[in-house]
Amino acid sequence: MYSFNNDYSEGAHPRILKALTETNLEQNDGYSMDRHTAHAVSLIRAETGRADADVHILVGGTQTNSAVIAAALRPHQAVIAAATGHINVHETGAVEASGHKVLTPPTANGKLTPEGIRTILDAHMDEHMVQPKMVYLSDSTEVGTVYTKAELTAISDFCRQNGLFLFLDGARLGAALTSPANDLTIADIAALTDVFYIGGTKNGALFGEALVITNDALKADFRYLIKQRGAMLAKGWLLGIQFEELFTDGLFYDLAAHANACASRLRDGLAARGYEFAYPPQTNQLFPIFTDEMIERLGRDFLFMPDKKIDENRRSVRLVTSWATTEAGVEEFIRALDSGR
Amino acid sequence: MYSFNNDYSEGAHPRILKALTETNLEQNDGYSMDRHTAHAVSLIRAETGRADADVHILVGGTQTNSAVIAAALRPHQAVIAAATGHINVHETGAVEASGHKVLTPPTANGKLTPEGIRTILDAHMDEHMVQPKMVYLSDSTEVGTVYTKAELTAISDFCRQNGLFLFLDGARLGAALTSPANDLTIADIAALTDVFYIGGTKNGALFGEALVITNDALKADFRYLIKQRGAMLAKGWLLGIQFEELFTDGLFYDLAAHANACASRLRDGLAARGYEFAYPPQTNQLFPIFTDEMIERLGRDFLFMPDKKIDENRRSVRLVTSWATTEAGVEEFIRALDSGR
Amino acid sequence: MYSFNNDYSEGAHPRILKALTETNLEQNDGYSMDRHTAHAVSLIRAETGRADADVHILVGGTQTNSAVIAAALRPHQAVIAAATGHINVHETGAVEASGHKVLTPPTANGKLTPEGIRTILDAHMDEHMVQPKMVYLSDSTEVGTVYTKAELTAISDFCRQNGLFLFLDGARLGAALTSPANDLTIADIAALTDVFYIGGTKNGALFGEALVITNDALKADFRYLIKQRGAMLAKGWLLGIQFEELFTDGLFYDLAAHANACASRLRDGLAARGYEFAYPPQTNQLFPIFTDEMIERLGRDFLFMPDKKIDENRRSVRLVTSWATTEAGVEEFIRALDSGR
Amino acid sequence: MYSFNNDYSEGAHPRILKALTETNLEQNDGYSMDRHTAHAVSLIRAETGRADADVHILVGGTQTNSAVIAAALRPHQAVIAAATGHINVHETGAVEASGHKVLTPPTANGKLTPEGIRTILDAHMDEHMVQPKMVYLSDSTEVGTVYTKAELTAISDFCRQNGLFLFLDGARLGAALTSPANDLTIADIAALTDVFYIGGTKNGALFGEALVITNDALKADFRYLIKQRGAMLAKGWLLGIQFEELFTDGLFYDLAAHANACASRLRDGLAARGYEFAYPPQTNQLFPIFTDEMIERLGRDFLFMPDKKIDENRRSVRLVTSWATTEAGVEEFIRALDSGR
Repeated sequence: MYSFNNDYSEGAHPRILKALTETNLEQNDGYSMDRHTAHAVSLIRAETGRADADVHILVGGTQTNSAVIAAALRPHQAVIAAATGHINVHETGAVEASGHKVLTPPTANGKLTPEGIRTILDAHMDEHMVQPKMVYLSDSTEVGTVYTKAELTAISDFCRQNGLFLFLDGARLGAALTSPANDLTIADIAALTDVFYIGGTKNGALFGEALVITNDALKADFRYLIKQRGAMLAKGWLLGIQFEELFTDGLFYDLAAHANACASRLRDGLAARGYEFAYPPQTNQLFPIFTDEMIERLGRDFLFMPDKKIDENRRSVRLVTSWATTEAGVEEFIRALDSGR
Repeated sequence: MYSFNNDYSEGAHPRILKALTETNLEQNDGYSMDRHTAHAVSLIRAETGRADADVHILVGGTQTNSAVIAAALRPHQAVIAAATGHINVHETGAVEASGHKVLTPPTANGKLTPEGIRTILDAHMDEHMVQPKMVYLSDSTEVGTVYTKAELTAISDFCRQNGLFLFLDGARLGAALTSPANDLTIADIAALTDVFYIGGTKNGALFGEALVITNDALKADFRYLIKQRGAMLAKGWLLGIQFEELFTDGLFYDLAAHANACASRLRDGLAARGYEFAYPPQTNQLFPIFTDEMIERLGRDFLFMPDKKIDENRRSVRLVTSWATTEAGVEEFIRALDSGR
Repeated sequence: MYSFNNDYSEGAHPRILKALTETNLEQNDGYSMDRHTAHAVSLIRAETGRADADVHILVGGTQTNSAVIAAALRPHQAVIAAATGHINVHETGAVEASGHKVLTPPTANGKLTPEGIRTILDAHMDEHMVQPKMVYLSDSTEVGTVYTKAELTAISDFCRQNGLFLFLDGARLGAALTSPANDLTIADIAALTDVFYIGGTKNGALFGEALVITNDALKADFRYLIKQRGAMLAKGWLLGIQFEELFTDGLFYDLAAHANACASRLRDGLAARGYEFAYPPQTNQLFPIFTDEMIERLGRDFLFMPDKKIDENRRSVRLVTSWATTEAGVEEFIRALDSGR
Repeated sequence: MYSFNNDYSEGAHPRILKALTETNLEQNDGYSMDRHTAHAVSLIRAETGRADADVHILVGGTQTNSAVIAAALRPHQAVIAAATGHINVHETGAVEASGHKVLTPPTANGKLTPEGIRTILDAHMDEHMVQPKMVYLSDSTEVGTVYTKAELTAISDFCRQNGLFLFLDGARLGAALTSPANDLTIADIAALTDVFYIGGTKNGALFGEALVITNDALKADFRYLIKQRGAMLAKGWLLGIQFEELFTDGLFYDLAAHANACASRLRDGLAARGYEFAYPPQTNQLFPIFTDEMIERLGRDFLFMPDKKIDENRRSVRLVTSWATTEAGVEEFIRALDSGR
């Protein structure tokens, strides 16, 4: 069984594992107060062009989202997200558990627009309703699409005009930045948002999300929030070391580019055979539409997730490639498309 | 200016005020441990046919909703409500502030259905998502409609089959029970739900909502929840006395019937003149559709709330009648419909 | 049985009840947007000498405390209070339910000191601990004592030097301000604190606490917090009317002075007979020490609360007088002290 | 500089790192649904003698404490802990952020007693106060002491008689179980508590705490709580693999025994030179008392944490040994005691 279940099915890129092994018996200060983390932070500041940014590396995405939103919002304030947004559907209500409502405007292909956000603002006018104060979006999105520079700029402008914080979930930022459909740099993202993070878990680290806070209003006391949410790793240098590697010699981009290249090969193979996609195939998450019979047959040799019902006998599924996806795995899948046809 | 803004624009029915005055210098135990509250509770148990019910009288609806939901749900559990439900839009995120997500299935005319609720259950299957555990509905609804006995029974059956608590917000229960479209009794409601409340604020009391808990699983320690949410009135007998009056000689029903009769007269006057309604006019809340010009003109002499845009130059508005609405006010409004036509 | 249980055993002062009755059929805007509330607010601004203050009138103390603290603190911040403080022991963890820890320094006679507060600051130094950000105190305190101007000024200075908000719970502010031991005015309190409230429930109103926010940093969006906590009364003018009366012709002070005078008479009677007090008797709450036998005997004719064990066969009890306490009740109690001796 | 700062200053025991490396390119299911975790769970069930236990492995202690307490308590319920307990002082109010108060009875040497717990129960009697429902204790404690079997049994009996859950924080369970002062087995602990955890972070793992839930009432839906708190590691097998190693061939005990042996050597060296300890030296945390001058001098060559002021010119400090502490480090410290005397 070869798995296209997700981009976190294997451990870490060998360079990362090697670095962890070589530093294993060093004595380091705990709680991310170590020199590796300091170095990783300086690398990330350089990469994003923001020497003034506060950078914190947390273990996982849900705790990062929860900490940022709890840090930014007062009790009566709410966050706007796509209905498909990770915080809205796949975090077991972590945002609500912190006391905040998630408001979901209409979207297409998992992407927010200024127009959609405006419908939320227009509907929330007084103290009987929650007060929208932050916009949350993911790039790449949960359905594999990416924001263009024009799209993200329009949202950023709208947010600034309307007093909304803009928070970008970059759990799959590598896949976004190395997508052929992308025209953003990581510096653009730092400039257009108030806070965002750079995902390691889904791009070759054992775990780790590097949060970059550029808006001063969101910086104060953030380590308190990390600690309170149980997101402060005792051996914090494990996070620092991994990001030192990711941001040395472009490893972060190389790994994501590999995942995208594997996805492109799959996409081409699927498209050449006439398969449609539920969402535009732009990154390492593909959502091809198969008949139920085809899904059953492919499922004998490959692991992948169901997505949604399309019509009476067709469904979309999710195929995910990663830094660790092998050429052999990809080719085998494409061959399997033909074998039983 | 005559106000149709809502059903809580005046104080209390004179019988209630008289009772409060006559008992003013009695010394009573605080926090609803007094004899008036005990008597009111016994009257409500008799009225609902549930001698086993726990009855608590709280000051207002938002705190009652918040206390019930917080008492019933564990941290990962969610409540299902109509998108128009009071807890979803008009309580400033009080449910989320208690840590719980509100899930909103498709509805028509503000009413939930088993089919709609099922779509929520089907979409929430594992621990990455919140767990739906309670259904919240209002009767009458926030758009003035009522549930029939068949409809409420179907929802109740569905909830019991699926392990969901059923909670009925009866802030306007009087208007529902005395609506021509209603075929439920208060005893039916007690039998079909796990917990519900009987609204006083919108039916002739100064304030007060009588919560009736029939499901033993929801009874334990409820006074702790009331107190923690700041919903335990020091002079709790003020609540007891008001409900003693409401449930003596049928005052509760008489007041609601008056409100509904005033609304029926308005509805007939509007319908006779060809006005349409955004929702079926069944209780003391009417949503007639007017041109913007008509709204502007009526607004010179009457207070009422805007509802929603219908088309380029028409909107619905909300007209609410109450126990205190005068015949003169109603007739004046009907005359005003003609005056400038 | 005559009750000295508390100062909220009767309804409202007749002037208040009369005002409620006379305005009963007025149509008023809901949610404290009415003209009576506006008038009450202007009276309170004048009385406190703070035309710039934001004034909100809420139903009860627990919800007021919860709303203020939730409005003021970020998730990692904590409030400092006396161990005997109402928020620490008698609100069922409402502050913690809003997410905040209550920190309790050593105190004497229920009163905080700068030295005590400093011990808390010294012990909370980094992000592994909560961050103290607000000081909460009650005047009069929960044990009936009052702060002098020198004491409150010292605390106020300390708070300002250390970036702490100062919040004064005035549920029994009337009793404090009319105590012989007091040298503060309500304007002093407004000047020395960031936010405080003026209790109506325990001083002759049916209910109602008038919150006065003088620090701009605490003003923003406060009505959202009120609503979210279920503390926004639909018929908000009921609150406004009561405070109109309390702050017209000095009623607020007269009622508290009466309560204190009754307590002074009791105190003198007790002291003359050699009884000691667990705390200095300064306001309308007295804590005389009786033998168990005496408590049993007095308990046959009077209601009062137990306080704490003093030694093998003596305990303190709490006697509370109010605006409604009668001379006859007081004299009867004093006679009872002698009767069985 | 040799560090005695804590027991998490180095990475992982080489066997653990080797296992992580060897399995690095395996494809595993995410979120702890993998075979390594299943194997680790079976090893832990065997070790604890509880085949019926639910076992979950989380990344860190604060998130484990928060998830357990949130899972166990209703909104009005509180947890009892030593004032020195980790949840009370070193988790930035994570318990309060979940809505629950921490109640702290008097203790000696960081250990709870039934008598102390009873004082809390006696003081919390009605719905105006929080309801104590869980007892939290740490073994070894935050001051390095251990519970004897008699002590833990007495607390366990008390909890069962009084309807309290008993939760044991075993972040340093290895140090406790291998202490000369200990007479408990891990099976005893499983039998005497309702839920406890086995610390990996402070005993040779990169990170990881294995939670063992033996009380059925605490098992339901626990994975929802893990996910909601952001404590569900995507690559959950990293946790499973580490606990496979720790519970194969007794590694868990060997590592802790090494830490304790190093501490014993330090203790003997200190005692032989007449130094006193602020708490009984029983495990890998020692709290010797030094003059300020001595602290200054030792601080030139060694890292350690300050503890508390003892008298005018003496303080206690905390020395912590670990699985990675070297004999050379220990001997050097002992020599340093003499060098400047």
